[in-house]
Amino acid sequence: MKNQQQLLESITSYIDKFQYPEQPEGLYAPIKYILSLGGKRLRPLLMLMAYNLYKEDTESILPQAIALETYHNFTLLHDDLMDRADMRRGNLTVHKKWNDNTAILSGDAMLILAYHLFVTNSTAGGNANPHTLLRALGTFNKATLGVCDGQQYDVDFESRNDVCEEEYMEMIRLKTSLLLSCALKIGAQLADAPDADTQHLYTFGEKMGLAFQLQDDLLDVYGDPAVFGKKIGGDILCNKKTFMLINALQKAEGDDKAELLKWINAKEFIPEEKIKSVTAIYNNVKIKDFCQAKIEQLFADALAELEQVNVAESKKTELKDFADKLLGRNK
Amino acid sequence: MKNQQQLLESITSYIDKFQYPEQPEGLYAPIKYILSLGGKRLRPLLMLMAYNLYKEDTESILPQAIALETYHNFTLLHDDLMDRADMRRGNLTVHKKWNDNTAILSGDAMLILAYHLFVTNSTAGGNANPHTLLRALGTFNKATLGVCDGQQYDVDFESRNDVCEEEYMEMIRLKTSLLLSCALKIGAQLADAPDADTQHLYTFGEKMGLAFQLQDDLLDVYGDPAVFGKKIGGDILCNKKTFMLINALQKAEGDDKAELLKWINAKEFIPEEKIKSVTAIYNNVKIKDFCQAKIEQLFADALAELEQVNVAESKKTELKDFADKLLGRNK
Repeated sequence: MKNQQQLLESITSYIDKFQYPEQPEGLYAPIKYILSLGGKRLRPLLMLMAYNLYKEDTESILPQAIALETYHNFTLLHDDLMDRADMRRGNLTVHKKWNDNTAILSGDAMLILAYHLFVTNSTAGGNANPHTLLRALGTFNKATLGVCDGQQYDVDFESRNDVCEEEYMEMIRLKTSLLLSCALKIGAQLADAPDADTQHLYTFGEKMGLAFQLQDDLLDVYGDPAVFGKKIGGDILCNKKTFMLINALQKAEGDDKAELLKWINAKEFIPEEKIKSVTAIYNNVKIKDFCQAKIEQLFADALAELEQVNVAESKKTELKDFADKLLGRNK
Repeated sequence: MKNQQQLLESITSYIDKFQYPEQPEGLYAPIKYILSLGGKRLRPLLMLMAYNLYKEDTESILPQAIALETYHNFTLLHDDLMDRADMRRGNLTVHKKWNDNTAILSGDAMLILAYHLFVTNSTAGGNANPHTLLRALGTFNKATLGVCDGQQYDVDFESRNDVCEEEYMEMIRLKTSLLLSCALKIGAQLADAPDADTQHLYTFGEKMGLAFQLQDDLLDVYGDPAVFGKKIGGDILCNKKTFMLINALQKAEGDDKAELLKWINAKEFIPEEKIKSVTAIYNNVKIKDFCQAKIEQLFADALAELEQVNVAESKKTELKDFADKLLGRNK
């Protein structure tokens, strides 16, 4: 069994050495660029770790693992364009470095390249049998379409004021969790793991992903700017209907409620004041504790699913360790 | 064996009855919309016709046929956005009817849906075996990535003045021909046709597609506006480096050459004057005859490939008829 560092190195090496077509350069240069910006490579790592619970030759599924990473970076590329974001991982976004049309077309090619990579094994005569590969491809399809659904709900929620907690959780499940859970499921499927195991790994990833997103929401308000990497209060400024805002609106009463609604409906305001005031209301209704309790519950649910995976406990250490790190529980 | 009309009806019926997910509506409504605008359904038709040379149950590959049509319409959707085109098939384009972000995201979902449809058979337990399906998927991947390459070259050529005939032919091969030739090849592959046949059908489609695009270029200058469906002279106005312009620049001498270069470099001009003057030079250097001779040659090459397909001559009638109609040779 390999440790995370070894798996990560094999992923990084595959990405670095990948031979894109030389021409047309205008199509492939932006793809190379965004994939070279780094990132934690969570999805390919999860896929390899799940596979490694059952089989040792993790190198044989690197094309599928990089397919997921390519797909994920494609979503970032098009999301950044739609959000008109200037920066990604400390560098210019593709539509800023090139232009909008390049971001559209290179993004499209990236999505196609992800599918191309996913079935590379079959055409290259690799060792996965066609049944296995097609089943895993079905899971990949479920993920790619679901992430689009999640993105659309996210857009829809911007112009709605009645988003409930259930809707929000479903949106982040689709937009954030699904690709993590499918990464684990695909890894297990490619190793021909028992169906029950693939399902437990899927749910482990789902709960972990939800906890991860809620923690990201929490850090947007209560995080240390130096560690968080983004400006604090971004969600508050744009009235993003997060788990925290939705529940704060439920819990706030009297003056707090009136004040919160006033800030949500304010057209003009000083950003720092809005962040400070809304955070004060969050403190009054103890939304931080409430959100942390939810994260704890999801994390416990995730570990309970991992418990049920039918492999030796010693093999699960890497995945537990991964979940700890992802949620900032450095021991 | 079914005739084109019967095959077209099965295609139209499948598209009309296709059940998209109900939600999120904002994602799927534009997809339904663009697929409902009609079009000649050339690609699914070619796929079914190729399959039908070998097997009768054409219904069994309708998901793959509609996958190609969905992919083709996805390229139109994103190309229209990149070109800022307002109209498509007499209706508003998706980014005009909705907005740019909708065109990006619904387009992405359409591309994913195409892949989803392509492997539907495998997950639904259809009759194609996994090897067959994966081989056909490899051909589909080749087409989807190649069309992106073609689109990028088309964009690149806009800012270049030294595009040669060979480069132009390769660009239109990728952008226009490839999906037609792959439609035929995929149809044959799904019917488990001999490799030699799939290759002849592929080349038949390639030559036919090239002839079709050259004819489209010709009609842009010499077509009847009422029949052509677009304004005459569009390529001339934007200096598009078509087969005709590239060769006219080679053939023109003296005053004709100077005049042609003057119009190409003119920043301000009256559109009708530029069209009239450039067309006059085209007439002087007999570019229409030259282009028609090239179309004839490609058409003859296409038919020669069809000749070599190892099925009864009577079965090839529909494909010959298709090629005749596509190139406006109504008998």
